[in-house]
Amino acid sequence: MKLQAALDTLTLDECLDLLKETNGSVQIAEVGTPFVIKEGMRPVRAIKKAFPNIEVLADTKIMDAGEFEADACFEAGADIVTVLGVSNDATIAGVVRSAKKYGRKVMVDMIEVQDLAKRTAEVDQMGVDYICVHTAFDVQATGKDPLDDLKVVNQVIKNAKSAVAGGVKLATIDAIVNEGAEIIVVGGAICNADDRAAMAKALQGRLK
Amino acid sequence: MKLQAALDTLTLDECLDLLKETNGSVQIAEVGTPFVIKEGMRPVRAIKKAFPNIEVLADTKIMDAGEFEADACFEAGADIVTVLGVSNDATIAGVVRSAKKYGRKVMVDMIEVQDLAKRTAEVDQMGVDYICVHTAFDVQATGKDPLDDLKVVNQVIKNAKSAVAGGVKLATIDAIVNEGAEIIVVGGAICNADDRAAMAKALQGRLK
Repeated sequence: MKLQAALDTLTLDECLDLLKETNGSVQIAEVGTPFVIKEGMRPVRAIKKAFPNIEVLADTKIMDAGEFEADACFEAGADIVTVLGVSNDATIAGVVRSAKKYGRKVMVDMIEVQDLAKRTAEVDQMGVDYICVHTAFDVQATGKDPLDDLKVVNQVIKNAKSAVAGGVKLATIDAIVNEGAEIIVVGGAICNADDRAAMAKALQGRLK
Repeated sequence: MKLQAALDTLTLDECLDLLKETNGSVQIAEVGTPFVIKEGMRPVRAIKKAFPNIEVLADTKIMDAGEFEADACFEAGADIVTVLGVSNDATIAGVVRSAKKYGRKVMVDMIEVQDLAKRTAEVDQMGVDYICVHTAFDVQATGKDPLDDLKVVNQVIKNAKSAVAGGVKLATIDAIVNEGAEIIVVGGAICNADDRAAMAKALQGRLK
């Protein structure tokens, strides 16, 4: 199991401080979508340069031009790129092609996929590395939780590994750990903590 | 009708040159998704500063955190931001909230929406400005064309205006102009032309 810290709301300097203070407890640094929108691939390059041993995920949520867009991320040093499960098969195939070319990895973000079991079975055949269930930030207020979705994906996958994102925090991580996932993504619970480094360490301590 | 040039594959300097040479024929400069992935909001700021009279669209294809991500784009000077039609209603509502706060506009990109008429009717009630039919770059090779989708959207919309994107070129623009759309997006046909400025002017000449 790996802890992925989704860095959405911090400045680049704050991200670098966090990763320095918690080196060892965060295995994957996610340059979140809002961070990409603001800064492009600059944070990917900076984090990779400062922490060559931490994997960097570019949360680009690719929806089209799969190979072209993934190429740009891998060129910048990203280890993992995200593509949307709601995108066309040809787009996911393009991202996989790019990843194989660079020797890197693909995560499919299943956010807002309507038939999760069906789409998971399809995507699982496409050579992707991770299939990530994801309760959208914008719907977390309804109380929806990604654990049930994780169970669905874990029952279906034969090739890819599962990942989980969407409001995971110290109070909910144990149930996820028990269900099982290769990557557990935590965003707000770390970024908005009073002591971010201590929270990352506490979360890491719960993983198996 | 407005011509939107999708700037996906050019450098920032090439974009600025293109807009200088064609000033008057391109009404909306689109900072394309690959450009955002590479550079963030830097091209939005640069184009808006150099050409205050050209509208700038940030093709962010927002899928979550609608208000937060749109805020970042409008802060950078974008006049129009895109959100995906496949995203949750709450996400589109967040982008609309942001746009109203800044006095800017929202385009919903209907790429990969499965039931186009149904989703168009829903999105048309949400206070968005444009609903854009969009044949994905990754599926244009199959020969699919956005004209049929445009007809569907034009029959459904009561509040928003229609837009069209996906492989539009000089040979296909007349049929689109005759069907009618407020915004016609042209990418490769301009960016890959031998004489980009001449091509943009020729396309503009076909609009009504």
